[in-house]
Amino acid sequence: MKIAILGGTGPEGTGLGIRWAAAGHQVIIGSRQAEKGEKVASELLELYPKGDIKGTDNVIAAGEADIAVLAVPYTGQEPTLSTVKKQVKGKLLVTVVAPTKSPKARAWRLPSGLSAAEEAQQQLGDGIRVVAAFQNIGAHNLKDLDYVLDCDVLICGKSKEDKKIVMDLCADAGFRGVNAGALQNASVPEGLVSLLIAVNIIYKVKDAGIRITGI
Amino acid sequence: MKIAILGGTGPEGTGLGIRWAAAGHQVIIGSRQAEKGEKVASELLELYPKGDIKGTDNVIAAGEADIAVLAVPYTGQEPTLSTVKKQVKGKLLVTVVAPTKSPKARAWRLPSGLSAAEEAQQQLGDGIRVVAAFQNIGAHNLKDLDYVLDCDVLICGKSKEDKKIVMDLCADAGFRGVNAGALQNASVPEGLVSLLIAVNIIYKVKDAGIRITGI
Repeated sequence: MKIAILGGTGPEGTGLGIRWAAAGHQVIIGSRQAEKGEKVASELLELYPKGDIKGTDNVIAAGEADIAVLAVPYTGQEPTLSTVKKQVKGKLLVTVVAPTKSPKARAWRLPSGLSAAEEAQQQLGDGIRVVAAFQNIGAHNLKDLDYVLDCDVLICGKSKEDKKIVMDLCADAGFRGVNAGALQNASVPEGLVSLLIAVNIIYKVKDAGIRITGI
Repeated sequence: MKIAILGGTGPEGTGLGIRWAAAGHQVIIGSRQAEKGEKVASELLELYPKGDIKGTDNVIAAGEADIAVLAVPYTGQEPTLSTVKKQVKGKLLVTVVAPTKSPKARAWRLPSGLSAAEEAQQQLGDGIRVVAAFQNIGAHNLKDLDYVLDCDVLICGKSKEDKKIVMDLCADAGFRGVNAGALQNASVPEGLVSLLIAVNIIYKVKDAGIRITGI
């Protein structure tokens, strides 16, 4: 699969990118500036020389890809989506975005009362299939391919078929994906980001995660 | 400890009540009608005859207890708190409430934009210490003392000391309690209720839960 990671230059985008490349996917690191995308892609290739990884700007990346992954901070969500709206038409867009508030990454309730994922669906319109996933994973050791992540990924979205595709992408990145129902449930994994950061601070750890039990 | 479970006649209230009684606590099942509280208490005593369990109305229960546990549906939260405000003054109030929408227990965003737990704190004022816990546990087999529940309880609140008390109550009921930060984080365990119901339906199970990993 050809996967564009929009805003893919941060720890989560690069960590997922290298893992997907190691699983045999073509990975395109997108950035606002093509040069930054190229630079990060070549850094990832140093870590994993066998990977099919390249970098470019978000618009070209989105246009070339089968699947677009949105990995920008919340404040970059609307500006980024507005530039790639045409390029992602008819495609699956996986949003990793969680709204957090600096400096302590506190939970942040959006004025819309929606999850960031539902806002993304509204911003893109019905022609684009939005699925929320990967919010609640720690980015800390993600780039280390040998690091085993003790965390499930909650997958929220409308279509079973799309969630199955994302579930396979979870497995490719070393996670168990769990079908967690409708897109509106995305407020839970989005909120978990701040909650798990609080748990990290309270318990003096770096990688608090969650597992779904009983399934 | 003398624990009043306000609106304690449902599956969650009775399940926690019998578990706390088995751990040696005095349990008072509160209801709007004293007769209903008494009836449910005597049913619990049939299940666990050694327990110190009685039933009465919410106001008397709250007045007698060291700790009040609010186990009403969300629609009963404000009416119940307004009747017991005086009785819980200076005490610890543990809220189990999660706002869900019938008939499918869908996630429900409150018009206030807050968690139900934060609304409870606002409704009660500063003199009462509100801690949120036990939202995300399955009530299904809770009354069965031999049933091992594979689920952590997320504990959200302001004071470390109060959260420590609730953590002990978690252990007494057979759960590991996890300090999950400030009261505003309660929107996550509240939202988890609907998400876990969705997971139950999707995976055809009855007891989906969560575990916090990495701590």
